[in-house]
Amino acid sequence: MRIALQLARGATGQTGVNPMVGCVIVKDGAVIGMGAHLKMGTGHAEVQALNMAGANVEGSTVYVTLEPCSHHGLTPPCCDRLIAENVKRVVVACTDPNPRVAGTGITRLREHGIEVQLGILEREAIDLNEKFNKFISTRMPFVTLKTASTLDGKIASKTGDSRWITNDQSRAFVHTLRHQHQAIMVGVDTVVVDNPKLTTRLSVAALDPIRIIIDSKLRTPPTASALEQAGRTIVVTTDEAPEDKLEKLLEAGAEILKAGAGPRVDLRDAMKQLAAQEIGSILLEGGGRLNGAMLEQKLIDKCYLFYAGKIIGGDNAPSNFSFGGFEKMSEAVWLDRLKLEQFGYDWCVIGYPQYQGGGS
Amino acid sequence: MRIALQLARGATGQTGVNPMVGCVIVKDGAVIGMGAHLKMGTGHAEVQALNMAGANVEGSTVYVTLEPCSHHGLTPPCCDRLIAENVKRVVVACTDPNPRVAGTGITRLREHGIEVQLGILEREAIDLNEKFNKFISTRMPFVTLKTASTLDGKIASKTGDSRWITNDQSRAFVHTLRHQHQAIMVGVDTVVVDNPKLTTRLSVAALDPIRIIIDSKLRTPPTASALEQAGRTIVVTTDEAPEDKLEKLLEAGAEILKAGAGPRVDLRDAMKQLAAQEIGSILLEGGGRLNGAMLEQKLIDKCYLFYAGKIIGGDNAPSNFSFGGFEKMSEAVWLDRLKLEQFGYDWCVIGYPQYQGGGS
Repeated sequence: MRIALQLARGATGQTGVNPMVGCVIVKDGAVIGMGAHLKMGTGHAEVQALNMAGANVEGSTVYVTLEPCSHHGLTPPCCDRLIAENVKRVVVACTDPNPRVAGTGITRLREHGIEVQLGILEREAIDLNEKFNKFISTRMPFVTLKTASTLDGKIASKTGDSRWITNDQSRAFVHTLRHQHQAIMVGVDTVVVDNPKLTTRLSVAALDPIRIIIDSKLRTPPTASALEQAGRTIVVTTDEAPEDKLEKLLEAGAEILKAGAGPRVDLRDAMKQLAAQEIGSILLEGGGRLNGAMLEQKLIDKCYLFYAGKIIGGDNAPSNFSFGGFEKMSEAVWLDRLKLEQFGYDWCVIGYPQYQGGGS
Repeated sequence: MRIALQLARGATGQTGVNPMVGCVIVKDGAVIGMGAHLKMGTGHAEVQALNMAGANVEGSTVYVTLEPCSHHGLTPPCCDRLIAENVKRVVVACTDPNPRVAGTGITRLREHGIEVQLGILEREAIDLNEKFNKFISTRMPFVTLKTASTLDGKIASKTGDSRWITNDQSRAFVHTLRHQHQAIMVGVDTVVVDNPKLTTRLSVAALDPIRIIIDSKLRTPPTASALEQAGRTIVVTTDEAPEDKLEKLLEAGAEILKAGAGPRVDLRDAMKQLAAQEIGSILLEGGGRLNGAMLEQKLIDKCYLFYAGKIIGGDNAPSNFSFGGFEKMSEAVWLDRLKLEQFGYDWCVIGYPQYQGGGS
């Protein structure tokens, strides 16, 4: 199962709103087939592994990181193929949270006399597809927040200088994070101040995510760097968006999405509409006001908060989270399953926001 | 030498402005004497160890964590005793930064034919007495800052609620920090809002440090908890301090120290005057404005910044460092020799502030 999980991880960032899945087939103590789901619309992991195993597969044991599917999607159901091939036993790490599967795959296999064992390395398998799991069960994107702050929680100096807070190592890891998400989202202030490319720059080939700019008044300049990059850029605005600016952005290659009547973007509605476009995972890269607004709306699922051992000061310098705030410390949003990871002299606080009074 | 360092550490918090020193005497492969400096005015480590060794000490090797003193202070010079006892060899971890010693002890020993080896576990020995080292060489107190912040750098909510940011483990460690310093310093806002006792509460017996309150307008209530505790409380104010309030605080048992003409306390002058009272180490426990002012004045030598995995928000909620701030990220104060220590789900960032354009 560990090998199957590694196979699955190999496709990180490639599977869109599909889960990552790995499969290993064993017979008489030898591995006879291995497979992974690499890309939406292509063969599932089980099918790849069965194809590799060929005619020899009868009586074998199949290790698969996710419950085999039982429905006709873009490809025929894997269960039927496993049954037809007469495998003996299927070991499954976790059930499929997709409501169209959700245990029916396992039931179908058992009905056909195949022995099924469930829950081996379950936690790892669930975590592997945490983005998919949320999307498929709620039809909302999984939102990961990334910030880089000083020890006093600032993301820039009072003059707006933010180059650089964190070190090379931290900043390199951000490109890995970008690759792991279907889209990157920023506020228009970040576009105006920093004019970022919002691409994935890794030493190995990587897919550039879709760029999303939250921009209620369409202040994004049509000459923005982000609009010059390959791939889609979606500018999210409101019904109040000025028509002339909208036209110019469309001409510059942007897509426009209207969320809410205004004056501010309805972030929850925006997330729903993006999910409807099959955007299942978003990396949120601030500024502070957008981070704060997303947090207030309970729309952030995971945080990667980078810190450098620096103190910049400035009472009006922008904070990593800028919002109204809670009255009592006991009402604060807290991070579950908190982990610290060091990047040289920087460190990253990783965790899952828990909202008092219920999550997103 | 490791044993000698452990002996020295045993007196943590007890030696006032004196260094912690440990000594081990070895002869023919056996330990024949051990000693530590326990309290100002009592015997030095070498003397304690020589006393334990008794008549048998001739020809022995003496391991001592700090250069033996060559001057008459509260006790006679240790060098003379070592020479008189005819020891063969002295192994010294580090020289004494006290300008009255500073290598003369080692020279004296060598002049009398004693073999001296210097620099064994030097870094550990220097770090052990980092507070003493600063005080003795600059006649300014060593200031350690302690804060407890949320992930957004806040030390309280917008309503002032700060109970609690960090967990039991973190808060228990703060009492250990208090024990390691001669004085605790807070701003008057902390006294007015939180009314803290400012005592050391450990499960073992501990010395309560002197309490220092920075209070330019004498807003400290004469009924403040801090004034009701055993030991000294020094209220630092300015020449502008209102006489009636000053009288009431004196009646309540406070000592008054005037630093500067006003309207704000001259913090550098205050530190000088406190050092002149033989206060060599201070634990600074905020609020944010006092932390910020001390940082601007380059008066902070070491930081213990505790963080909890919480986000409280509130643009006006107090920050861990509240001051004008720097214009460029490259001008930020940064922490040298940075270390992270976990306390359950909290963590502490420990380091030594480095000020651009020179230190304190």
